[in-house]
Amino acid sequence: MNILFASTKEQPEFWFPLLQKALPQDRFFAWPDTNGGDIDVALVATHPGGMFSGLARLKLIQSLWMGVENIVGDPELPRGVPVARLIDPGMVAAMGETVIAQVLDWHRHFWCYRQFQHDRVWKRRRQYLASDRTIGLLGLGELGGSVAAKLRALEFNVAGWSRRPKKLEAVFCSTDLEQVVRRSDALVCLLPLTGKTQGIINSRMLSLMPKDGCVINVARGAHVVIPDLLAALDSGQLARAYLDVFETEPLPADSPLWSHPGVTVTPHIAALTEPRTSVGKIAQNIERLRRGEAPLNTVDFAAGY
Amino acid sequence: MNILFASTKEQPEFWFPLLQKALPQDRFFAWPDTNGGDIDVALVATHPGGMFSGLARLKLIQSLWMGVENIVGDPELPRGVPVARLIDPGMVAAMGETVIAQVLDWHRHFWCYRQFQHDRVWKRRRQYLASDRTIGLLGLGELGGSVAAKLRALEFNVAGWSRRPKKLEAVFCSTDLEQVVRRSDALVCLLPLTGKTQGIINSRMLSLMPKDGCVINVARGAHVVIPDLLAALDSGQLARAYLDVFETEPLPADSPLWSHPGVTVTPHIAALTEPRTSVGKIAQNIERLRRGEAPLNTVDFAAGY
Repeated sequence: MNILFASTKEQPEFWFPLLQKALPQDRFFAWPDTNGGDIDVALVATHPGGMFSGLARLKLIQSLWMGVENIVGDPELPRGVPVARLIDPGMVAAMGETVIAQVLDWHRHFWCYRQFQHDRVWKRRRQYLASDRTIGLLGLGELGGSVAAKLRALEFNVAGWSRRPKKLEAVFCSTDLEQVVRRSDALVCLLPLTGKTQGIINSRMLSLMPKDGCVINVARGAHVVIPDLLAALDSGQLARAYLDVFETEPLPADSPLWSHPGVTVTPHIAALTEPRTSVGKIAQNIERLRRGEAPLNTVDFAAGY
Repeated sequence: MNILFASTKEQPEFWFPLLQKALPQDRFFAWPDTNGGDIDVALVATHPGGMFSGLARLKLIQSLWMGVENIVGDPELPRGVPVARLIDPGMVAAMGETVIAQVLDWHRHFWCYRQFQHDRVWKRRRQYLASDRTIGLLGLGELGGSVAAKLRALEFNVAGWSRRPKKLEAVFCSTDLEQVVRRSDALVCLLPLTGKTQGIINSRMLSLMPKDGCVINVARGAHVVIPDLLAALDSGQLARAYLDVFETEPLPADSPLWSHPGVTVTPHIAALTEPRTSVGKIAQNIERLRRGEAPLNTVDFAAGY
């Protein structure tokens, strides 16, 4: 097979040695070298504009990321070519680590103790235990399931919302968004970005949360209505927000988010795809293609992810 | 039974309603009211000096804390009266939460991203996964065992040192301190303070750790030789230190620790005793005493805890 690597964000030099080892019989090309258009599989993550037009033989578009809104939203996406999401076990593990870190930072008031340290003040906040808190997860797919298990291991109560009914052990699962938000001391967004999830964290949802909670957005910037979030922080309804993703990235230097005392900004690092843990998943899909089998984790275009 | 509550740190008003409910047939007194010296059980945590001399009928000294170095070190401690440590499930849970929070803060570079946010810099550090790291626990008692299980649930590798041989599932346990320290990317002190553990984290131990690691001290201030720790931070051998406990508390306003860029200071809040979760344990020991049985979790004076 001829495999094209085309991304404005991922670096082929980190991927090619591992890909070539996993798929020794295949040939790899890095955009803009398209082998004269003779390409079977495109590996993409924020792909160059117009790239699909010259690839008439394309059989599979394999994303290098879990989020595929850039691919699904490309008006030039060829029809009839399956698009596969990447479910990278390393990325899933990293996401769990980040969510736990941010939940604990809020839950045990470490954000507050940093201010006390800065002020050289020895002062205690009331101690809550994980078992006193309910963490609400928006999205109960691969990420939500893994994050829920880690939160449960720390004795947090977990509630979760998903579009389709789900069952997870010891997790309050619901398809009723408000029912989940009303009981969530911390709200964690793990959703794919679609027309239905854009702006899902807005003033209405924030007003339903118990006071003094936090919002953790590790999905996509457009899930959160930023003016609504800042209003909830400024009114004291919300204690803290942890934002890893933004509508414009890098976050512009003049954004008020950088210096807002209630906001932790991280540079889209909650969970990076790990070449070492994901190459096996990519190779699996390419081997399936070679055997004439349907690829795994293909996008449902009606759902948008 | 007549039960005396005597602590310069814990407030009787948080304890008495719960104690009276758990032990309805007993009478409670708050220091300095010693019922004319007619006291069967003393509940203590940093007790007032000289308090034991007037309590001739004392049958049990029940600590309100897990750490008992203030009791063991009191030269006026009556001989022959058992001293019991408090193993509070809430305090154990809280400790696990804090250690996980600090480990993740170091492991995923959140301490670094806070500086980047302050500087309005969008920059990424290399992503490591929990499975790339080994967390070393000094102390494998109730706290160490619970912390180890939570770290394992997050996929960290765990090594642990204890004075006596221990076996914990999927944890590298050793009684050889250097063997544990050499493999510990992060070193967590959970030890009781005794003559043998004082100053255990010193320049020799810090030099054995892999570079760029961190030290988390949630036990007692005297476990760490502070000048050695600061030297390891300043040389770049150590990336970060999380200190919750200090030889003098509150930490004096002129301590260099408050403003050291490599140090996170918290005001001894890693794990507070929770009256609601510990009253059952205290009541259990008092009921044992009433039935003429030996109390649980008594101090081994030869070991010092």
